[in-house]
Amino acid sequence: MTRRLRPRPADSPLLDLAGNDYLGLARHPEVVAAARGAAARWGAGSTGSRLVTGTTELHAELEAELAAFCGFEAALVLASGYAANLAALTALGEAGTLIVSDAGNHASLIDGCRLARAEVAVVPHADPEAFRKELSAHPGPALAVTDAVFSVDGDIAPLRDLSAVCRAAGAALVVDDAHGLGVLGEGGRGTPAAAGLAGQPDVVATVTLSKSLGSQGGAVLGPARVIRHLVNAARTLIFDTGLAPAAAGGALGALRLLRREPERPARVRAVATGLHGRLAAAGLDVTRPDAAVISVRAPAPGEASAWAERCREEGLAVGCFRPPSVPDGISRLRLTARADLTEADLDTAAGTVARTAPPGARHPA
Amino acid sequence: MTRRLRPRPADSPLLDLAGNDYLGLARHPEVVAAARGAAARWGAGSTGSRLVTGTTELHAELEAELAAFCGFEAALVLASGYAANLAALTALGEAGTLIVSDAGNHASLIDGCRLARAEVAVVPHADPEAFRKELSAHPGPALAVTDAVFSVDGDIAPLRDLSAVCRAAGAALVVDDAHGLGVLGEGGRGTPAAAGLAGQPDVVATVTLSKSLGSQGGAVLGPARVIRHLVNAARTLIFDTGLAPAAAGGALGALRLLRREPERPARVRAVATGLHGRLAAAGLDVTRPDAAVISVRAPAPGEASAWAERCREEGLAVGCFRPPSVPDGISRLRLTARADLTEADLDTAAGTVARTAPPGARHPA
Ligand SMILES: Cc1ncc(COP(=O)(O)O)c(C=O)c1O
Ligand SMILES: Cc1ncc(COP(=O)(O)O)c(C=O)c1O
Repeated sequence: MTRRLRPRPADSPLLDLAGNDYLGLARHPEVVAAARGAAARWGAGSTGSRLVTGTTELHAELEAELAAFCGFEAALVLASGYAANLAALTALGEAGTLIVSDAGNHASLIDGCRLARAEVAVVPHADPEAFRKELSAHPGPALAVTDAVFSVDGDIAPLRDLSAVCRAAGAALVVDDAHGLGVLGEGGRGTPAAAGLAGQPDVVATVTLSKSLGSQGGAVLGPARVIRHLVNAARTLIFDTGLAPAAAGGALGALRLLRREPERPARVRAVATGLHGRLAAAGLDVTRPDAAVISVRAPAPGEASAWAERCREEGLAVGCFRPPSVPDGISRLRLTARADLTEADLDTAAGTVARTAPPGARHPA
Repeated sequence: MTRRLRPRPADSPLLDLAGNDYLGLARHPEVVAAARGAAARWGAGSTGSRLVTGTTELHAELEAELAAFCGFEAALVLASGYAANLAALTALGEAGTLIVSDAGNHASLIDGCRLARAEVAVVPHADPEAFRKELSAHPGPALAVTDAVFSVDGDIAPLRDLSAVCRAAGAALVVDDAHGLGVLGEGGRGTPAAAGLAGQPDVVATVTLSKSLGSQGGAVLGPARVIRHLVNAARTLIFDTGLAPAAAGGALGALRLLRREPERPARVRAVATGLHGRLAAAGLDVTRPDAAVISVRAPAPGEASAWAERCREEGLAVGCFRPPSVPDGISRLRLTARADLTEADLDTAAGTVARTAPPGARHPA
C-alpha cells in the first residue's frame, strides 16, 4: 500500500492521539509567543552554518538551559533530532571504533551507524548481555547506542544495566532520549536523569526539541570535551544551517514553562496509564506504557491501516506502523498520550479504538 | 586548530559577508511577519512525521508554490536542505543503481551517497565526459548528482552538458540548487530553470529554504511520480518531524516577496560582480562569481583563519574554509553577496579584505 500525505487544517476536528506533542505545548500561547518573539528579534532564519553566522546568543542560551535542566555539562543544538543523532554517532564512531546498536533503534540512529566510519554490531532488543558480549570481543574504543524509550512500542531501555556493561568495558553509552525528555525523570528531566546517568563522564544523550518541547530541532548533551569534539567533527553541525531562531525560541519557551510546571510530565504518564487500562479492559493486545507511547497490536498490515482509517472516520487520529517501518515486522496502531487530554477524551479515544477493532485484534475472552 | 562557536548578538555591528541570506530576506519585515503568523496559526512545531500529524495545509501550499515557481511538477518539503539531499539520494539510489557524483559536491550529497544502497562513483569536478564514461560502463539504472552552484568556490556546474550525457545514458540527473534558487534564472527561479532543465522528466532538483528564502528547511522538486516515491521511501521524510510551521511560513513569505520583486536576484549578482572587481583590482586571487559566492585564495590554512580574524577585528564577517572542510585542500576566504549591500558596503568590504591580506595572497604585480 502506498503512503500519502494528508494536509491538516489549522482547526482539525480530530482528537489527536497520533502526534508527539506530549505536553501539549506546541500550541501553548507562551510557547508560541516565544517562537514569535525569537523570529522578531533574530529573523526567520539563522543565515548560515553554526560555525559561520548561524549561532546566535539565543542558541547559546538554549544550550546552557537544556544542559542544566537535563543534568549534563554541555549541549549542542542541531537542526533536527535526526541531525543530532547523525552528529553524535558520526563524530564518536570514528574508524577503529565499534558501535553496538540495539535492533529496535530509531532510523536516525541506524543511519548514524551507517554514516559513521566505525564497525557496527546490531544486537537483540533490550539485551545488556548481548551488548556485553560484543563489547568484550572488541579491543579498541567502543560505544553502545540505544533509544531510551523505543519509538514504536514505547518500552524503556535497561539503561542502568547497559551503563554498567559499558563502564566495565570502558565504552561510552549514547542514549537517544527523544521520547523521554519532558516525560520521564523528576520534572521531566529525561530518562538518563531518571536512571542516575545524567552528567556521567561516559554518557552522551541526544534529545529532540520537536516532541515534548513542541518545536523543531535536536541536541546532543554530554561532557564539554565531547561537545567540543562534535563542533569540530560532526558534519551535520559543520555543513548544515543552524536551527531557525523561532524553533530555538519556541523550545526555550517550552523548557522554561516545563520548569515552572513540573506536574506536566506526571500528568502525561497518568494519561498513558489511563489509556492503557481502558484498552486492555476492552481486550486489546496493548503494551504497558513506560512513558507516553502505547502500541496496540493489529493482526496484519492491511488490517492495521484499515483500523486507523476507521478511527479517523470516527474523529480520532492514531498512528499506524507497519512493515517496513517497524523493526520486528509486527503491525500496530501507535497511540500517544498528551498532558492536556481529559478523562472524557480518554473514554472517547479508547471507545473508538475498541469499537473499530478488527476481529483478530482481541485476546480470546 | 579547533573550531569554536561564536554566539552573535541580535544587533551585531559586523558587516556580514559570511551568511547565505543572499536576498537579505531573513530579517525582512514581511518574511518575519509570515514566520510569526504561521507560528500563531499552526503552533511552534508540526508535532510529528509528515506522514502522521506533521503535514499542514501550509506545507502543501509551500510545496505547490515552490514547484510552480521553479518549474517542476511537484515538491516535497523536508526539515532541512541536508535532509532533502539525503531523501533524494537514498530514495533514488536503491541497490543495483549507480550514482555518479562530482568530487566537489556538498557534504550532504556525499552523505546521501553513502547512505544510499547504490554503488557510487566519484568523478573529477565539473567534467561531463567523466560522468559519461561512468554511466556508459554501468548496465542498470543510474543517476548523476551535482551541486548547481558549488558551495565553496561558487562556480556553476555544466548542467546542459551533464543533462545531455544523462539523457543519452538513460540516467536521471539530480541537481542541488541550494545556492542557485533566488540568485540564478529568470526572477531567481534557479539554475535548472536557467539551463532549461526544470520540469524535465529525468531531472530532480533539491533546494534549501535556509539561504535565499531566509528561513530553514529544504525541498525536493521533480516529477510527481518521483515525489510520490520519496514519500514512501525516503527515511528523512518518514522518520523525521515535519518542518516547523514558522519556517514553512517564513519561506513561503520570502517566495511571495521574491515573485513580487524579481529584481532582487539581478541585484545580488551585480553585488557579487562588484565585489569580485574590487578584490581582483587589489591583486587578490579571487574566483569570478557565477552566482553569489566568491572565494579568495589564501596561502595556507593558518593564514586563512588569521586573515578572517583580522577582517572580523576590523568589523567584517567573512567565511573561512580550510581542510578538511574543502574537497581540494585549498584554504580560502568565502565571501557572499547580498542583495541589500550598498556600493559603500562593497568598498568597505573589499578594502578590509585587501588591507588585511597576508603577503602571499596577492598576485605578483
Ligand atoms: C527515537 C527518535 N529519535 C530521533 C527522532 C528524530 O527527531 P526529529 O524528528 O526531531 O528530527 C525521532 C522522531 O522523529 C525519534 O522517534
Ligand atoms: C550545496 C548545499 N546543499 C545543501 C546544503 C544544506 O542545506 P541546509 O543548510 O538548509 O540544511 C547546503 C548548506 O547548508 C549547501 O551549501
